[in-house]
Amino acid sequence: MATMNQQILLASRPEGEPTASNFKLVEAALPELKDGQVLVRNHYLSLDPYMRGRMNEGKSYAQPQPLNEVMIGGTAGEVVASKNANFAVGDQVVGMGGWQLYQLVDASQRGVLNKVDTRHVPLSAYLGAVGMPGVTAWYGLTQIIAPKAGETVVVSAASGAVGGAVGQLAKARGARAVGLAGGPDKCAYVTGELGFDACIDYKQHPDLKSLSTALKAACPGGIDGYFENVGGMILDAVMLRCNAFARMAFCGMISGYNGEPIPMLHPQLILSNRMKLEGFIVSEHMEVWPQALKELGTMVATGKLKYRETVADGLANAPEAFMGLLKGRNFGKQLVKLV
Amino acid sequence: MATMNQQILLASRPEGEPTASNFKLVEAALPELKDGQVLVRNHYLSLDPYMRGRMNEGKSYAQPQPLNEVMIGGTAGEVVASKNANFAVGDQVVGMGGWQLYQLVDASQRGVLNKVDTRHVPLSAYLGAVGMPGVTAWYGLTQIIAPKAGETVVVSAASGAVGGAVGQLAKARGARAVGLAGGPDKCAYVTGELGFDACIDYKQHPDLKSLSTALKAACPGGIDGYFENVGGMILDAVMLRCNAFARMAFCGMISGYNGEPIPMLHPQLILSNRMKLEGFIVSEHMEVWPQALKELGTMVATGKLKYRETVADGLANAPEAFMGLLKGRNFGKQLVKLV
Repeated sequence: MATMNQQILLASRPEGEPTASNFKLVEAALPELKDGQVLVRNHYLSLDPYMRGRMNEGKSYAQPQPLNEVMIGGTAGEVVASKNANFAVGDQVVGMGGWQLYQLVDASQRGVLNKVDTRHVPLSAYLGAVGMPGVTAWYGLTQIIAPKAGETVVVSAASGAVGGAVGQLAKARGARAVGLAGGPDKCAYVTGELGFDACIDYKQHPDLKSLSTALKAACPGGIDGYFENVGGMILDAVMLRCNAFARMAFCGMISGYNGEPIPMLHPQLILSNRMKLEGFIVSEHMEVWPQALKELGTMVATGKLKYRETVADGLANAPEAFMGLLKGRNFGKQLVKLV
Repeated sequence: MATMNQQILLASRPEGEPTASNFKLVEAALPELKDGQVLVRNHYLSLDPYMRGRMNEGKSYAQPQPLNEVMIGGTAGEVVASKNANFAVGDQVVGMGGWQLYQLVDASQRGVLNKVDTRHVPLSAYLGAVGMPGVTAWYGLTQIIAPKAGETVVVSAASGAVGGAVGQLAKARGARAVGLAGGPDKCAYVTGELGFDACIDYKQHPDLKSLSTALKAACPGGIDGYFENVGGMILDAVMLRCNAFARMAFCGMISGYNGEPIPMLHPQLILSNRMKLEGFIVSEHMEVWPQALKELGTMVATGKLKYRETVADGLANAPEAFMGLLKGRNFGKQLVKLV
């Protein structure tokens, strides 16, 4: 009897916030392996904000997630069958396995499936601090913000997988790291556990003036770099506190993912402060991944890069965990455990 | 009897649009020359949009123009007296002489006063195509937009001193140049005389949708680079037509100079199109001026860089000419002839 796979498909596109009805759990028999193919049992599924953008139709930086196909997503797991000379049963691997228990993949193309070493770094970390979120943090911080020692770097969504790494990488370069996070628990984690110099609870600052005042207090020397995960009022408030020649890495704008208008109030500041704003998608910069993963892996293995995980249990709980992620209910990297 | 100088001072700060009452014409006797000083008879005064920003109080990239002092401004003229070994009577020079007939200046500091060669390039051009506006165009185009052959570069205020040079420099690099200008005469000049591939009369497109549609028609391959002189709706419309990895050089935002709010409607596009937006002030990049002036001077001398001048007659007419410049009444580089 063929092994049964479970998969979550995109059943319909959300109007505004996603709901459970946008997803559909199905069973499907796994076909026989062909030459070059590898069968991976997914242990962890990564849930990430970018998935929300893919659920929309229309022009974006990436192809929209097709309807009635398996939701895309990063996965970490173990090879359970292989007709590819480069992979053996028992290999620990990461790939884009999607929201499903098993990934059947032609592993001949370089980069589709990557073996990882779990002796010093746990498997799940390859979906977080030593994976796409970590490299995202590394790219925006080192290639766009490029902080000098003594400069101040601000990060939104600072308790998240990306934001947490941004601040710790900034600190490792001698910069001052200031986070923005939602709620006292996340803020305490950002300063206490991750070692940021300060963290602002944006929920305590519902208007621009209040948030801008809080940023002034937390950044007495102004802001030299900003890692943008959120957009909207937080972006406006940060811009008001930016120094001349400030750099902003645009990585996400979660506040606009449901289609809300999120205008930037004062684009004149780009000129008057001679700022640089740059958007990026880390998958378009594969050339830096080896260098980034080397630094991130070493930092995790030596305890210098800390992170936290929120782990949902079982594929069926992935949609709810994803909706929680978009509302900021997760704490650190959001994963789904599949085994 | 001492030579009498005439000067225009900033009498008060404008609230909204500047008016004649913000300026004051005064006479003042010129003091005796001290060692190291040079007396320049200003032949031309340059009027530029940046002056409007300086008239405001408060935080900007530059010190505000002080009240009751001579308005700042670039000038070209002739040395009429010198106690400085590097300058002789009869030398043609450019400097920041301000809104006045004579400039008395300590010329020991390098760069304060620069001798120019008027054999192949007219004196007034050193305030335009071969001066600050030309270098501004050169910097934004070559150092930020850096167009590849075949790419499309859009320029606002395309008939102006900066915009006109941007398009011609883009064409010289094999790019397609599309201008935005106000009125059929300016548009005809931009395509006919300056050689842009297309020019859109923004006055024919009073709303975002109409302007965006016009840009789509003029830029069938999308927009790869944008030189921003204006801000507001034009910026929003251009952003909607930008290709992935588009670059925007922010040089001016004249639409916001009187304090109007000019929000950017869709900052999400910075991320989804992986754009780079960078503000700059050309006086902070003196290291590139020699290279830029060499290219610009050669292009003007050989007829490859064309420009037009609007020349007001006499210092007393400078305020009105300046107010006209802010309303787009000039055609090409706005100068005041002082002799």
